[in-house]
Amino acid sequence: MWVPVATGRRGLTVAIAAAAAGLALAMAALRWRRRPVREVLFFPSQPSCTEALLAEAAGPGAPVQPCPCPLPRSDCSLSRLLRRLLSARRSLDICLFAFSCPQLGLAVRLLHRRGVRVRVVTDAQYMALRGSQIGLLRLAGIQVRHDQGHGYMHHKFAIVDRRMLITGSLNWTTQAIQTNRENVLVVEDAEYVKLYLDEFERIWEEYSPTNNSSLSQEQ
Amino acid sequence: MWVPVATGRRGLTVAIAAAAAGLALAMAALRWRRRPVREVLFFPSQPSCTEALLAEAAGPGAPVQPCPCPLPRSDCSLSRLLRRLLSARRSLDICLFAFSCPQLGLAVRLLHRRGVRVRVVTDAQYMALRGSQIGLLRLAGIQVRHDQGHGYMHHKFAIVDRRMLITGSLNWTTQAIQTNRENVLVVEDAEYVKLYLDEFERIWEEYSPTNNSSLSQEQ
Repeated sequence: MWVPVATGRRGLTVAIAAAAAGLALAMAALRWRRRPVREVLFFPSQPSCTEALLAEAAGPGAPVQPCPCPLPRSDCSLSRLLRRLLSARRSLDICLFAFSCPQLGLAVRLLHRRGVRVRVVTDAQYMALRGSQIGLLRLAGIQVRHDQGHGYMHHKFAIVDRRMLITGSLNWTTQAIQTNRENVLVVEDAEYVKLYLDEFERIWEEYSPTNNSSLSQEQ
Repeated sequence: MWVPVATGRRGLTVAIAAAAAGLALAMAALRWRRRPVREVLFFPSQPSCTEALLAEAAGPGAPVQPCPCPLPRSDCSLSRLLRRLLSARRSLDICLFAFSCPQLGLAVRLLHRRGVRVRVVTDAQYMALRGSQIGLLRLAGIQVRHDQGHGYMHHKFAIVDRRMLITGSLNWTTQAIQTNRENVLVVEDAEYVKLYLDEFERIWEEYSPTNNSSLSQEQ
């Protein structure tokens, strides 16, 4: 057994210095880990033009025509939400009560076109209303499933690349984005993401047309 | 400057042992910190009797009469949400679109009676509907403020003791709890809590009757 006192004064000093270095290294290693995304978006979103953002996402690298609309190009909650979604490279799983916002609908279709595996679960009653984006998503070939009408499918969350959770009170509607008080929490946290992914998979299976013949056929 | 090689073999061994001990101590200290609350509740909640939980909260230590209802007493999403709320000791700030669940209404009134500072922000249109708990909260002397009708006050979050955030898709209604697909994320995280507290204070000030004479007087 080695104890510092047996090494003399010099050994003790070295031991203390080495211990301090060990501690400093451990703390630095923890600090150097890439900080996961943690963000909260509050709505209503400031009015802002998102055309350039969507055009850039549609054809990365291509020159973007300036939009003639009078809205400012500043960052806003909607543009930040769009950026989080457009960061998807492999998958986007969406579980959403109401979806009628054209910009968010376009972003989801762009991701699908880019080869991202998009799955959408929604509420049967709301998807039939005028202005819903669900028809356009299906037309584009995106898989959509919906509930059977026992209560509402009232979730409002999305999971990007099975690593980032986007959840809150916000339905993806223009009214909610422009007028309501809403919140969206963005968190890159494996523990939370897994719980929401499990819920998504449960619902996805439950709403499968092969499990229930009364559900309309998905695309 | 000290370098291990100058201390001889014994000194070097001691230095390595001390460095390892320093690292181990740092890791243990990180592990020993009290783990903050992290929980996700999914709904619909299993049917379950919450009478004993609420009776115990109303008179801690007093004998609780068994409830004659046939529902099981098992843990469920509603009972877990109730427990999180009833853990409040100093403050409860609620920002909620719809609030009609009698059990959650009773829990909030119990906290107020216990001396917890309760503040409620809600939506003007929904609070006027039949079954809303807002009238009972006001009768009990709880401060309630509401929006003025520009869009919805659609948030669904609560903050316990300025340290725990409870947020998600769930309105506190019996239909949502028993029938809908909903999620509630519980997080004890100073960064997120601060952002939601700031939003609460912004809204609380904005909806103050002294700031806007057209708003009905709060209790």
